[in-house]
Amino acid sequence: SSATDTIRATLFPGDGIGPEIAESVKQVFRTAEVPIEWEEHYVGDQVDPRTQSFLTWESLESVRRNRVGLKGPMATPIGKGHRSLNLTLRKELNLYANVRPCNSLPGYKTRYDDVNLITIRENTEGEYSGLEHQVVRGVVESLKIITRQASLRVAEYAFHYAKTHGRERVSAIHKANIMQKTDGLFLKCCREVAEKYPEIAYEEVVIDNCCMMLVKNPALFDVLVMPNLYGDIISDLCAGLIGGLGLTPSCNIGEGGIALAEAVHGSAPDIAGKNMANPTALLLSSVSMLRHLNLHDKADRIQDAILNTIAEGKYRTADLGGTSTTTDFTKAICDHL
Amino acid sequence: SSATDTIRATLFPGDGIGPEIAESVKQVFRTAEVPIEWEEHYVGDQVDPRTQSFLTWESLESVRRNRVGLKGPMATPIGKGHRSLNLTLRKELNLYANVRPCNSLPGYKTRYDDVNLITIRENTEGEYSGLEHQVVRGVVESLKIITRQASLRVAEYAFHYAKTHGRERVSAIHKANIMQKTDGLFLKCCREVAEKYPEIAYEEVVIDNCCMMLVKNPALFDVLVMPNLYGDIISDLCAGLIGGLGLTPSCNIGEGGIALAEAVHGSAPDIAGKNMANPTALLLSSVSMLRHLNLHDKADRIQDAILNTIAEGKYRTADLGGTSTTTDFTKAICDHL
Ligand SMILES: CC(C)[C@H](C(=O)O)[C@@H](O)C(=O)O
Ligand SMILES: CC(C)[C@H](C(=O)O)[C@@H](O)C(=O)O
Repeated sequence: SSATDTIRATLFPGDGIGPEIAESVKQVFRTAEVPIEWEEHYVGDQVDPRTQSFLTWESLESVRRNRVGLKGPMATPIGKGHRSLNLTLRKELNLYANVRPCNSLPGYKTRYDDVNLITIRENTEGEYSGLEHQVVRGVVESLKIITRQASLRVAEYAFHYAKTHGRERVSAIHKANIMQKTDGLFLKCCREVAEKYPEIAYEEVVIDNCCMMLVKNPALFDVLVMPNLYGDIISDLCAGLIGGLGLTPSCNIGEGGIALAEAVHGSAPDIAGKNMANPTALLLSSVSMLRHLNLHDKADRIQDAILNTIAEGKYRTADLGGTSTTTDFTKAICDHL
Repeated sequence: SSATDTIRATLFPGDGIGPEIAESVKQVFRTAEVPIEWEEHYVGDQVDPRTQSFLTWESLESVRRNRVGLKGPMATPIGKGHRSLNLTLRKELNLYANVRPCNSLPGYKTRYDDVNLITIRENTEGEYSGLEHQVVRGVVESLKIITRQASLRVAEYAFHYAKTHGRERVSAIHKANIMQKTDGLFLKCCREVAEKYPEIAYEEVVIDNCCMMLVKNPALFDVLVMPNLYGDIISDLCAGLIGGLGLTPSCNIGEGGIALAEAVHGSAPDIAGKNMANPTALLLSSVSMLRHLNLHDKADRIQDAILNTIAEGKYRTADLGGTSTTTDFTKAICDHL
């Protein structure tokens, strides 16, 4: 199929500010004439027994069919008897790698101006096994599960990513000096994969030391790959270096080439519906989605328009210290296209 | 006993640069006329069957008897059949809380100049249980253990510390949205203790969000208390904010009031014996030890001398960008006393 054929993609606008920032993406895509037709799905208002969560079976089927999607923030409703929306998506779609490019934004000043790294997080197991129980009163345990299969899969993704994106080094982050068997297995798998990529440098960094190095000198890192919880922690730390979750794209890769890009910030109910939300994270995530679809020209154009708008500094939303509305900021991006 | 009675304290100079930086502490204490008599113990050259590590039984007995000690870096010899030196100390002496004050050093520039927080880490259980096994080929698990007893104990320590050190807030760091039972129990214990300290504000912060906030604005935090692994990660992250492990003091508190202060940086074998090491972390740890002994006058004098020497910037060791030897830097501190 040629690049101008229409591609169907699932869109989860999500809750809170989700629909507003999703509107922003739709407008930018229209302006840039991206050949994508959205299939919109909302979080249901009751638990779907087939998914055990407020996500409907149909919405999951939509991603499975389209193999590509974009997701806004989803606040899991409080209560029992259902699963977290984010965890349901990861489990049901087998989204095994969470990929977050993290780059300093020109013109948006933080304490760091030299961040240019990618975190790749194993997204299905580890400390997120859900296996916990009380041993005796006052003593509880949770199980961290590391498998050879999931470790090889995410390591393979990381090295392949490094190779195809002109990256030079992969750092495996671990705490194998303490968790010799679990993190040890993760490292063993990374080493096996590293052997197949002699052109990519490989190193192993203990997580505590990694965090110290990241805050001292993030330029030391290139591609980082790690088990689930370390990825959760380090990807947020890295987002903090460049200004926060409102500015960082994220994309989840699933078995069989599914890609679900997402804004990982919250649904900010306090400002929902007020035309104040910053759509940058969702927009940059939509760029990740376009790259996954090999629509690099469109991706480059949109990314440049976003970055130039932020760099100019004339239109910025409140979270970045400006006074622009979501729609003004979006319009400014469209004007740059 | 009056403050001028001699107090016996155990000193583990440790390996690598350990003996040189311990010498620096001894000299500063002599100059400041600190009424301490050191009982020095070195790491043995073979495994002591009574401790299952290279630490001798006598050295542990020394800390148990003196109830107070200072420890340089100890590199655990590689090989099987023995336990890590640091973990042996924590287990055998029941060092349940690791306390690390983290303050920006006036005159030593990093990207942050407003760090003034304390991390208090549970030091005996959690992910450090040592319980791991292979379930089937390619599937391994490790157990994280959280107990009511250890959680209450460290929470109590944190709130008591906050109260007696003029601190206003305790933040409990957790991932209870994922590990509801283990981290949930930890939080439950923190809440129970918080009730007893109505004058201290209490909040709960998810670890990923905490790391993001720390790199964006560390001034948001005051006292942080957390399970073992999060403490390992966050205390190193915080050290990074002010310049690294070479500048941060640490003190371990054990059951029955034992205090073992320690420099948490490595033994730096590459520069050992070259009179290049920076003794600051061990010196500041020795100040923590003096405070534990209520020798606040001596502690203040020594701390001021260290901070003034660093602030002046005339004498700095290589790791801080200077050219001073360990002995010159130490002499400069003594001259400030
Ligand atoms: C909301 C939470 C369950 C989630 C996680 O821990 O994975 C979030 O922090 C993330 O990184 O997507
Ligand atoms: C050396 C290592 C076992 C240790 C730990 O993980 O506790 C270290 O990182 C520390 O913080 O003292």
